[in-house]
Amino acid sequence: ENGHHGPAFTLGKHKVSMKLFSKNRERLCQRLRGVLKTQDLAVVVLQSGDSGTRYDTDTDLLFRQESFFHWAFGVLEPDCFGAIDVATGKGTLFVPRLPESYAVWMGKLWTLEDFKTRYAVEAVHYTDEIAEHLSVDGKPSSAITLLTLNGINSDSGKTSREATFKGIEQFRVDNTTLYPEICECRVFKTADELEVLRYANKISSAAHREVMKKIRPGMKEYQLESEFLHYSYAQGGCRHSAYTCICAAADNSAVLHYGHAGAPNEHVIKDGDMCLFDMGAEYYCYSSDITCSFPANGKFTADQKIVYETVLKANRAVLASMKPGVSWPDMHLLAERTILEELKKHGLLTGEVDEMMEACIGPVLMPHGLGHLLGIDTHDCGGYPAGVVRSERPGLKSLRMGRVLQAGMVITVEPGVYFIEPLLNAAFANEKQSQFLVKEVIDRFRGSGGVRIEDDVIVTPTGMELMTDVPRTVEEIEYFMQDARK
Amino acid sequence: ENGHHGPAFTLGKHKVSMKLFSKNRERLCQRLRGVLKTQDLAVVVLQSGDSGTRYDTDTDLLFRQESFFHWAFGVLEPDCFGAIDVATGKGTLFVPRLPESYAVWMGKLWTLEDFKTRYAVEAVHYTDEIAEHLSVDGKPSSAITLLTLNGINSDSGKTSREATFKGIEQFRVDNTTLYPEICECRVFKTADELEVLRYANKISSAAHREVMKKIRPGMKEYQLESEFLHYSYAQGGCRHSAYTCICAAADNSAVLHYGHAGAPNEHVIKDGDMCLFDMGAEYYCYSSDITCSFPANGKFTADQKIVYETVLKANRAVLASMKPGVSWPDMHLLAERTILEELKKHGLLTGEVDEMMEACIGPVLMPHGLGHLLGIDTHDCGGYPAGVVRSERPGLKSLRMGRVLQAGMVITVEPGVYFIEPLLNAAFANEKQSQFLVKEVIDRFRGSGGVRIEDDVIVTPTGMELMTDVPRTVEEIEYFMQDARK
Ligand SMILES: [Mn+2]
Ligand SMILES: [Mn+2]
Repeated sequence: ENGHHGPAFTLGKHKVSMKLFSKNRERLCQRLRGVLKTQDLAVVVLQSGDSGTRYDTDTDLLFRQESFFHWAFGVLEPDCFGAIDVATGKGTLFVPRLPESYAVWMGKLWTLEDFKTRYAVEAVHYTDEIAEHLSVDGKPSSAITLLTLNGINSDSGKTSREATFKGIEQFRVDNTTLYPEICECRVFKTADELEVLRYANKISSAAHREVMKKIRPGMKEYQLESEFLHYSYAQGGCRHSAYTCICAAADNSAVLHYGHAGAPNEHVIKDGDMCLFDMGAEYYCYSSDITCSFPANGKFTADQKIVYETVLKANRAVLASMKPGVSWPDMHLLAERTILEELKKHGLLTGEVDEMMEACIGPVLMPHGLGHLLGIDTHDCGGYPAGVVRSERPGLKSLRMGRVLQAGMVITVEPGVYFIEPLLNAAFANEKQSQFLVKEVIDRFRGSGGVRIEDDVIVTPTGMELMTDVPRTVEEIEYFMQDARK
Repeated sequence: ENGHHGPAFTLGKHKVSMKLFSKNRERLCQRLRGVLKTQDLAVVVLQSGDSGTRYDTDTDLLFRQESFFHWAFGVLEPDCFGAIDVATGKGTLFVPRLPESYAVWMGKLWTLEDFKTRYAVEAVHYTDEIAEHLSVDGKPSSAITLLTLNGINSDSGKTSREATFKGIEQFRVDNTTLYPEICECRVFKTADELEVLRYANKISSAAHREVMKKIRPGMKEYQLESEFLHYSYAQGGCRHSAYTCICAAADNSAVLHYGHAGAPNEHVIKDGDMCLFDMGAEYYCYSSDITCSFPANGKFTADQKIVYETVLKANRAVLASMKPGVSWPDMHLLAERTILEELKKHGLLTGEVDEMMEACIGPVLMPHGLGHLLGIDTHDCGGYPAGVVRSERPGLKSLRMGRVLQAGMVITVEPGVYFIEPLLNAAFANEKQSQFLVKEVIDRFRGSGGVRIEDDVIVTPTGMELMTDVPRTVEEIEYFMQDARK
């Protein structure tokens, strides 16, 4: 078995055929053929992520593939290159040439033929021969255009990894055409990709349910992070999580980036706390991103129920409205409006909801965007292609995707309501906003943290498919958690 | 509780006082005062690790502190600097100035006073003011020497992180004095450091025992990795492992670097397989590094017992001989000799053991070194200070520590015997070596993988303290595993 896997990834219970990646390469070539002039001899060149060690030590960092490279080749190893001939779709993988002595440390070294079988590409060569193998039909390299990846991620502002290698100067290099086209391909998931995303969601949903079964007041937040990671890996083959787990109890749940090294899910969960657990497993580099909010003791208080059901109503209103042709910023505003209506009903807000929308009360309570594209990255690329302009309105300006929904998109729906001190203080101090806020009622909720309900959804030709499967209504959650405690 | 932790780290069940780090700073200053001319105004300046995101995305990488910075300050956060006044030992921490708006995402922003309390340093300033706060006694900066970290890690060959900041050119910079002195400090662990290392070993030992209880033929190797990580984190507060887990069954156990992204502990464990599990948890950046080898079904075959007891005898011979004044390369050779004697007894080798030693038969079966210093890094620094020369002999040339043992050192003892095809083939083809190899007996063991037994040990004034606590003899392992199956 060692050294040969056949053309599929099989770590967990979902087998991923390497055809997923040949289809991606073919889709990309189709788009590029539409964009490039027909006489061009063009080859896409992508560079994988690099292996690395921690700081100056020899402690290996566990490698996770760069996302564009994964999308095109599905290769697990670092330090590779990949080429795709745009005219024919032929995929070539370039792998590092390892000295024979590595066999002592790494086991039997794979031959080029082994790699060709493993990843189902048309050719494999060593990375030190890349320039000589990039020629097409024996043409001189100067007649060939290499399409390299150079673009700015709309969430991070960082520039993509652009391939470079010895001898690249012999070729013409076009580094502007590829990025928008490959991003656009990544936005629309194939049937094979959707299967992987469904699997990642299935595992993460089950892991969240496991956490809801095992949580008890008195535990530390990170113990539930550990339960989630363990279930995802041992039961699902998900070695990586898609992002650092946020396991926030009580007021920590209003800290949107809780869980990082400086605030490592370290607090004791107390009886009566609400929990907000935002955790997602990643399977073969495909992400999930799920948030569950629930009371640590399994039973909502009346006030916890108010906030929770407000958020759930916003989540369900969006799910019910999603379909191709619907603007995502409109969905964000629908979530805000639903939240404002509900909180008005419960006495936290007063006045006309239309005027609250005008005064931007929504972002006081939900400062983040409604949701983002999801794929090989948790915040997947393609939310703001050329021509789609990011709004400057609070709330909308934090929305990571400004487009109209289309079938094949995968997106998170994650409304929330948080009682965040600096935001509430600013709103009370702003007379255009303070008129809508009922201080004595809001004060009752201050310090209670926040609630977020995050689902992962496929946009279908007629509506949407909900991939996330966890208890969601107050009744479902209370029944599920109490049943687990019997 | 949120935002205030007192001067201790308390994630798991072992509380680490910040005094551990003030003592380290004081130890460093004492050494430096011995080395520097007394009239020097000298300040050590260290730079922490940087926060980062994965490739071009906004997916945060879970931050783990740079090891020298951790040793000196115990600070969990990235993007900091630290200064230590050599004359007085005064420690100053420099933290990033975060915009007020971050409070929405990060929770209540810590004040400088909060950081001062949390890390028990004498002063805290913002990193953008570092140059103006590095002056000593109001002296002009040109009269002050900054001691920065520039040295080569003897395991990786990589250069340490040298601090640099805007305005450093106003100072004199000495980047050669600090590295050997701080490495030498790191080699000798204080009582507080030993407590943390004992805790990491206690948790890892218990996690290994948990794995031995839960393993069953038919499981995939990574499921045991997951068990180990879960136990270490949920029960011990160890969020990071010290290195990527090696969970190797059958012939994978002869692949010394198994478990990496390209060979991710992916195989099914079969009845009759031997397992070699090399896994260590890290607590507050202090490592453990333990290898357990045992049969997946809990019962050794006669041949498995031969190899296992050979390795155990080597391990125990070294443990019994360790004490201050003993040369570590001599211990390596003792392990080799013990292995050769035992394998001769069992008919795998023939001839005089002295001649086998001369012919370097040991490294055919154990190509790695006997063990390495252990601390904040798994392969801790300081194994080859100036004047200690690395041997070129096979086996010894792979030894990561060439020194004489001294009290306060922490080191791994990890002999092994592996049946590695390219090494055996080369030895059979080498007439100086092949005369000692009994082909028909060795052939019986080929394809069975290897065995390693790795313990973590403190060198004490009179001998050693074994920190690792797992079943080790054949009888202990069989009893323990069968008991867990009742
Ligand atoms: Mn999300
Ligand atoms: Mn080791």
